Amino acid sequence: MNALPPSPRTTVRRKPERGHYDAETIHAIIDAAFLCHIAFSDAQGTHCLPIACWRDGDFLYIHGAKSSRLIEVLQASEAAVCITHLDGLVMARAAKYHSMNYRSVVIYGRFAAIDQEADKAVAMAAFLEHVSPGRMQHIRPPSPAELASLRVLRLPLQEAAAKMRSGGPQDRPEDLTIPVWAGVIPLGRQAGVPLAETGCADFPLPALPPALHEAALP
Amino acid sequence: MNALPPSPRTTVRRKPERGHYDAETIHAIIDAAFLCHIAFSDAQGTHCLPIACWRDGDFLYIHGAKSSRLIEVLQASEAAVCITHLDGLVMARAAKYHSMNYRSVVIYGRFAAIDQEADKAVAMAAFLEHVSPGRMQHIRPPSPAELASLRVLRLPLQEAAAKMRSGGPQDRPEDLTIPVWAGVIPLGRQAGVPLAETGCADFPLPALPPALHEAALP
Repeated sequence: MNALPPSPRTTVRRKPERGHYDAETIHAIIDAAFLCHIAFSDAQGTHCLPIACWRDGDFLYIHGAKSSRLIEVLQASEAAVCITHLDGLVMARAAKYHSMNYRSVVIYGRFAAIDQEADKAVAMAAFLEHVSPGRMQHIRPPSPAELASLRVLRLPLQEAAAKMRSGGPQDRPEDLTIPVWAGVIPLGRQAGVPLAETGCADFPLPALPPALHEAALP
Repeated sequence: MNALPPSPRTTVRRKPERGHYDAETIHAIIDAAFLCHIAFSDAQGTHCLPIACWRDGDFLYIHGAKSSRLIEVLQASEAAVCITHLDGLVMARAAKYHSMNYRSVVIYGRFAAIDQEADKAVAMAAFLEHVSPGRMQHIRPPSPAELASLRVLRLPLQEAAAKMRSGGPQDRPEDLTIPVWAGVIPLGRQAGVPLAETGCADFPLPALPPALHEAALP
């Protein structure tokens, strides 16, 4: 994926300096995520649902049960996907200039199903690799029946844009003397103490994904 | 808000045991969030965007500039809002039984604007209280002109439902002897080292919100 020109829908209008359209930025934000929110419309209205996701090349992937209504309807309608990482609370001297630091991506398009079982197996292996690198070597891979019971969909990263904010508050000069702490409280995702199933405590812990290492806080 | 019967749109169909419809559960998930994703449709299609949010009583609040296209269109169309907290990566012995632990809420409805400036001031104070309790006493409150430049919208928590997963992997009995670590890698949000603006390092740090304390990992 090259840096495509933004479409009318992906052009960042409000605070355009926060918009980014290059693949490197968009990919990095997606790769730091384990889930996305998907918006789509059907006869019942417009919906917004969370679902696990991963990237391979220039596509965002999701999966679900073959019987899933969501997986069914996504193949029949346009969707918008959003991934957002909240990076910090921005504390200003004036109420109005409080803000949040974040990295987000929006993708528009239509999901298409992966038809070949072999391609589904490759995609699901990429998903597991995203969640825990190297883990596939140690676990039981999906059986043909298990693979057959699920659908894998992918969305091209063609009509996509990132929007980000970073840095401290932008108070007005006349507010700078207000005697209050101002700055950024960084927020990040952290892994806690692993909770082993019975009988598993002595096996090596699963590798943590880059998405978690990168989220390490200062 | 009482425990309302789920609507056709909020009834959790896939894994219905994960669905919850009581106000206490729904409020707690919203209160642990700083942002939500909003889905809505207009002439350009269906959109999914992140925005800061907070709860007061039986309403979810958002705000934006008076000139914001999003704030404009949300008053003219139905929306779906989703909040999701990713609580853990569930590692199973078989690829298929890997999962994620999460808490999510979906809300359907139409946002309405808060018309009175006094009510807007109260709502924005509640937002700041959500981000940093007690902070309003120390900062400069919004001026009448600043309040006038923004719109505050709220969505009733009437058509809402929560969906959650917790606990370890649900491997099949025949997979339990596979010699691999299985269990849960808990994930949580953590505050990092505060980054003070120039001249602010000696002021007391802002209070952190309950949403961050509650996210403390084991």
